[in-house]
Amino acid sequence: MRRSDRIVRLTRELMDHPGEPLSLTDMAQRFISAKSSISEDLAIIRSVMESDGEGTLHTHVGATGGVIYQVSLSDDRAASFVDEVKESLEQDDRILPGGYLYMTDLLGKPQMLRIAGKMFARIFVEKEPNVVLTVETKGIPLAVMTAQYLNCPFVVARRDHKWSEGSSVSTNYVSGSEKRIQTMSLSKRSIHEGARVLIIDDFMKAGGTVKGMTGLINEFSAQVVGTGVFMETAEPSDKLVDQYVSLLSLTEVDESARKIMIKPGNYFSMMEGTIHV
Amino acid sequence: MRRSDRIVRLTRELMDHPGEPLSLTDMAQRFISAKSSISEDLAIIRSVMESDGEGTLHTHVGATGGVIYQVSLSDDRAASFVDEVKESLEQDDRILPGGYLYMTDLLGKPQMLRIAGKMFARIFVEKEPNVVLTVETKGIPLAVMTAQYLNCPFVVARRDHKWSEGSSVSTNYVSGSEKRIQTMSLSKRSIHEGARVLIIDDFMKAGGTVKGMTGLINEFSAQVVGTGVFMETAEPSDKLVDQYVSLLSLTEVDESARKIMIKPGNYFSMMEGTIHV
Repeated sequence: MRRSDRIVRLTRELMDHPGEPLSLTDMAQRFISAKSSISEDLAIIRSVMESDGEGTLHTHVGATGGVIYQVSLSDDRAASFVDEVKESLEQDDRILPGGYLYMTDLLGKPQMLRIAGKMFARIFVEKEPNVVLTVETKGIPLAVMTAQYLNCPFVVARRDHKWSEGSSVSTNYVSGSEKRIQTMSLSKRSIHEGARVLIIDDFMKAGGTVKGMTGLINEFSAQVVGTGVFMETAEPSDKLVDQYVSLLSLTEVDESARKIMIKPGNYFSMMEGTIHV
Repeated sequence: MRRSDRIVRLTRELMDHPGEPLSLTDMAQRFISAKSSISEDLAIIRSVMESDGEGTLHTHVGATGGVIYQVSLSDDRAASFVDEVKESLEQDDRILPGGYLYMTDLLGKPQMLRIAGKMFARIFVEKEPNVVLTVETKGIPLAVMTAQYLNCPFVVARRDHKWSEGSSVSTNYVSGSEKRIQTMSLSKRSIHEGARVLIIDDFMKAGGTVKGMTGLINEFSAQVVGTGVFMETAEPSDKLVDQYVSLLSLTEVDESARKIMIKPGNYFSMMEGTIHV
């Protein structure tokens, strides 16, 4: 096989299986190439990915040798993504009655979700989550994309108990901003004891829903290793959740003045001091 | 830039933007390369993708020249995916009280969703959908993945009207198997007049829910160009929906004998006679 053909195939396999260990022996057989040639090509791919801030390859040599593509995103791309989202969301026709913000369309664009998913994957990969949790409905696409890049399964807590989920564990929680008691439930089969859970959601005001998810996870004798939200609100500044990562922060929706103000979330300050790949 | 480095970058950009037109001029500038070199590399990539059944590249030359990576999946990979899913789903501990089948875990695995999404993208790309529709909750991840490969936005019909969706259109429909009247609603902002809508869902029994979604789309003066479901039930064989594509067909759940039987869906017969890329 020509080197250029092999590089296309290797790049494709890695991009199509982020976070997943791929065997060098398997690839050598499939691509009818020496392992040493595969290793040389992987070195080229790693160098390109790293210099572009698009991630890195972790390789183990030897008989059980394998390679994992760990997705990343440069700070520049993350910053321009946040700028783009901010510009789109600050359009005044997004203000809904009651001072709410329409952002469903944005969370329905695969290009946007891919970048948000990469940002979450980049910051949480070091926490080694093995399952991503969200609650229905609007956080699901973000959870799917994040799980994809981390190569984890994802699970969805339901607002009601569903027959299709089998035996479930339910919990009540108080939504922090509205002080309303709500219920969420999660199939008993969905999370194993000792699981390392990453919570992903679209929006966080006081943090009551995330606190509810944390309580639910405790019922499974599992632990929450991180929480990521697409957008938090600046107020209340005192959240019910200690640690979380937000991509954006909604600082103001003024219904009468038709004004929306959005700032970058704490993602960027969280990234400072971490090792950039 | 070395050719090998450029091939890594081009393959990565294409894989990361399936279905999206990418400008040759932009790529030539970003990769500091002549357009003719980029074109040569794209020819290599196309040839590899086509020979592996992983898709093709559509290119336009000239001043506004661009390239689109259209995702596909070989029949072999589709068939082995269906075999794998069948084997996993036929395990008797999946039978829930009432003869239901637990498959939430499977629809929570990114690797599975990617392949299902590619199968839907492959079969529906020729219908030129410009939006993917599902109804909450379990079809959402499938809709996300399919939309990703088709480079469409996706929208989610809600069971109730939500304040965060703004003005919505609601419709009542009769779920075919249970004969219960249900409601679904969709934000007025989410679908434009004349849109070409692809419906994606996880499970179809009699087809009442899909029929409900079709009715909703008619309210928007838009048209349904295709319907894809992950799994249909063999009974009732007379569905409320004329045309649909299923990846799998559930032929039997025998609760007392602890037996589940699954067959490939009509996807494979639908693919016959179509042009394979």
